[in-house]
Amino acid sequence: MSQQVPSPPSPQPSPASERGSYGTAADEVISPTQEPGSGTQVGSMALHGSLPLAGEGPRERAAIGTNIRLLALDVDGVLTDGQLYFGNDGEELKAFNTLDGQGIKLLQDAGIAVALITARESALVARRAANLGIRHVYQGRHDKFAALQALITDLALDLAQVAYIGDDLPDLACIRRVGLGISVSNGHASVKQYARLITTARGGQGAVREVCDFLLQRQGLYEQALAPYL
Amino acid sequence: MSQQVPSPPSPQPSPASERGSYGTAADEVISPTQEPGSGTQVGSMALHGSLPLAGEGPRERAAIGTNIRLLALDVDGVLTDGQLYFGNDGEELKAFNTLDGQGIKLLQDAGIAVALITARESALVARRAANLGIRHVYQGRHDKFAALQALITDLALDLAQVAYIGDDLPDLACIRRVGLGISVSNGHASVKQYARLITTARGGQGAVREVCDFLLQRQGLYEQALAPYL
Amino acid sequence: MSQQVPSPPSPQPSPASERGSYGTAADEVISPTQEPGSGTQVGSMALHGSLPLAGEGPRERAAIGTNIRLLALDVDGVLTDGQLYFGNDGEELKAFNTLDGQGIKLLQDAGIAVALITARESALVARRAANLGIRHVYQGRHDKFAALQALITDLALDLAQVAYIGDDLPDLACIRRVGLGISVSNGHASVKQYARLITTARGGQGAVREVCDFLLQRQGLYEQALAPYL
Amino acid sequence: MSQQVPSPPSPQPSPASERGSYGTAADEVISPTQEPGSGTQVGSMALHGSLPLAGEGPRERAAIGTNIRLLALDVDGVLTDGQLYFGNDGEELKAFNTLDGQGIKLLQDAGIAVALITARESALVARRAANLGIRHVYQGRHDKFAALQALITDLALDLAQVAYIGDDLPDLACIRRVGLGISVSNGHASVKQYARLITTARGGQGAVREVCDFLLQRQGLYEQALAPYL
Repeated sequence: MSQQVPSPPSPQPSPASERGSYGTAADEVISPTQEPGSGTQVGSMALHGSLPLAGEGPRERAAIGTNIRLLALDVDGVLTDGQLYFGNDGEELKAFNTLDGQGIKLLQDAGIAVALITARESALVARRAANLGIRHVYQGRHDKFAALQALITDLALDLAQVAYIGDDLPDLACIRRVGLGISVSNGHASVKQYARLITTARGGQGAVREVCDFLLQRQGLYEQALAPYL
Repeated sequence: MSQQVPSPPSPQPSPASERGSYGTAADEVISPTQEPGSGTQVGSMALHGSLPLAGEGPRERAAIGTNIRLLALDVDGVLTDGQLYFGNDGEELKAFNTLDGQGIKLLQDAGIAVALITARESALVARRAANLGIRHVYQGRHDKFAALQALITDLALDLAQVAYIGDDLPDLACIRRVGLGISVSNGHASVKQYARLITTARGGQGAVREVCDFLLQRQGLYEQALAPYL
Repeated sequence: MSQQVPSPPSPQPSPASERGSYGTAADEVISPTQEPGSGTQVGSMALHGSLPLAGEGPRERAAIGTNIRLLALDVDGVLTDGQLYFGNDGEELKAFNTLDGQGIKLLQDAGIAVALITARESALVARRAANLGIRHVYQGRHDKFAALQALITDLALDLAQVAYIGDDLPDLACIRRVGLGISVSNGHASVKQYARLITTARGGQGAVREVCDFLLQRQGLYEQALAPYL
Repeated sequence: MSQQVPSPPSPQPSPASERGSYGTAADEVISPTQEPGSGTQVGSMALHGSLPLAGEGPRERAAIGTNIRLLALDVDGVLTDGQLYFGNDGEELKAFNTLDGQGIKLLQDAGIAVALITARESALVARRAANLGIRHVYQGRHDKFAALQALITDLALDLAQVAYIGDDLPDLACIRRVGLGISVSNGHASVKQYARLITTARGGQGAVREVCDFLLQRQGLYEQALAPYL
């Protein structure tokens, strides 16, 4: 089946828009452990785009993730599998994953900040965030990029130091503008095409843990994060 | 394993009954992006029937979906994966999907109406519908086709302008009589054989989003629906 | 990987024990539609055992299911996927499937009785049974076969007229003694080896519907069950 | 994709650290039924490590599991699939599996103790444990190995007689120090590499049952455990 994906429009400068056109061959897969000095293999992340990326040689690729100081996360479809459980009495449930929780803990312990930014609003997300020690929680935000900009101003970071994981159209502005835009295997095709990394796991099934491990490895922090548990 | 599927009975005229007999080869798959002018690839929809469809040449196929003004949805098995969560205190839960919610929003914003028609009855479905801005909600309707007919009279539409997605026998009358009858990958075989399109995703896992994207693309509305998010 | 499965012990006479020893080749699959006069293909059921069954020629196989007057069902792992949802306030949830519900309705409408027999006990199972019009509900029964025997005495049936679906050891006595012992694809290996039929779908994912359709087809009732929906 | 997994660090003596370096070939799979005298095949367990294990010949392999007197279990990701269901009113749900419950019952009936050790804390885990007759329940234990050591002192066992199943970093100390460290197919790669056995089923999908059956078979107890159900 032929697949003609047009070059994505690029109204603002973004890393994704510098890549030029897309090919039809299988995505290239980079393993975190191909990088010298990295530790245990903890999953693989697909680098989107099968043609040589404009302006990205091996050196640029090896640098991906090394400067990230903040990981910002969409909730539904990223920390969950996108299921919204509704009950008759107004109750709502979401299913989070323990693997992700451990990864977020490791990342924060290593000094990388974590934030949640979601358009929906619920007490349960606040509870889960508290449970994980996430202090930066933005709910009911339809303009997620505005929320992200406010946060990085507070943290004195710039967009190049931010990784953002999202799965659907409301995440596009963040994914295209941050230093490392990431989507999940269950993300929408129109979003995945703008993401620089796509997780192999699905949202709510360990996708966030995969990214946490990747960032720790790229920054040479994985071995020391693991050490207390051995 | 040989598979002898008899020609479906056709008591009423319907698009499905015009197709003639079925073959045993794999279903033909049409990609939305094979149509000139369509945008981003957002999934593929399988066109049921492997033999040349009686009365449907390439022109008729290209026209599928272009005139749809209303998307009517069964709930269980379509907007959910068919799981009915029962509790001891009478509570009931259903799991909806955020991808579907975004698709329904896009479709309504583009001026295509959305309706829910279900035989079961619960407050949670009303809540989810309100949440998505769906005003046309028919619950407790064992004769779904009668509900649909009442609705299209109200909206001054005719059946040819309606797409309907269902998964089981109570959906058959609607699927066979509307302009574009659709089933889901998890639908019952006796229903899928009458559907003109079958989603690749399962109900509750993005099947409805697939159809929303398909309709927007077929009507040349996808690019402008995407634009505000870029 | 070699697999040595010993001949099952056979303290009581049962259809399974008459089959003789098992082979290691792939299970033979029989399609409901290979039988003359059967209707739409609605799934396939694997006939357990790859060697010619002792005492079962083509005629015996074609007769499977034709005389069944009662379908008795285990609940957890059969009408559900075996997940038991526990909450902190004592609440418990189970996830049933709409496809199964429709099948149970069709079967009962066609005059074949349906019963639930489970070792666990909960109000939600009673509610789901009422919802489906199942009058024969046995909960908290650790000796399921005793419950089944009481029921068939009431209904003036004999064991040869009963089909029973189960997934684990407490179902073995019923599976081995009824006329048509059935297990599900997610059933325990020690149970599946005694089942005459194994569903292709998992419990809670349509396994029961598969059996309902199979019984209707084998008894020549499927077409007329479908007719009101066309 | 090349995969360079370094030799795991081995600060403490552990069975895993005696195995020497890892290869890249597929894991070797041993079937429980390859052992003479074992009974029905009830699943297969992958023996981690593709190179001849240092100090483990066929005799050592055949001995795996024969001396185990206690099976200690992590909860999230092992007895569940790792999903944590959060609600707005503070409620939390976990989904347990009936197959696992039956296995735990069989194991305890055969005189092998079962314990739960988890870092999280909830009333529902206590309820499920009571439901299964598990008396040894340790919740809110961030140092799981300390809890395990207290338990084996109470039971007058030594670590060589303990099997432990875990999926993530907080389980590593137990997995590396007990006689039989086990992980699940959905376990984290950094944990699985230290496990001697890895289940084929996922946590919450029968992984624990697989281990229960394995232990019963290795100790020649499976046939008599099955007998009452035939």
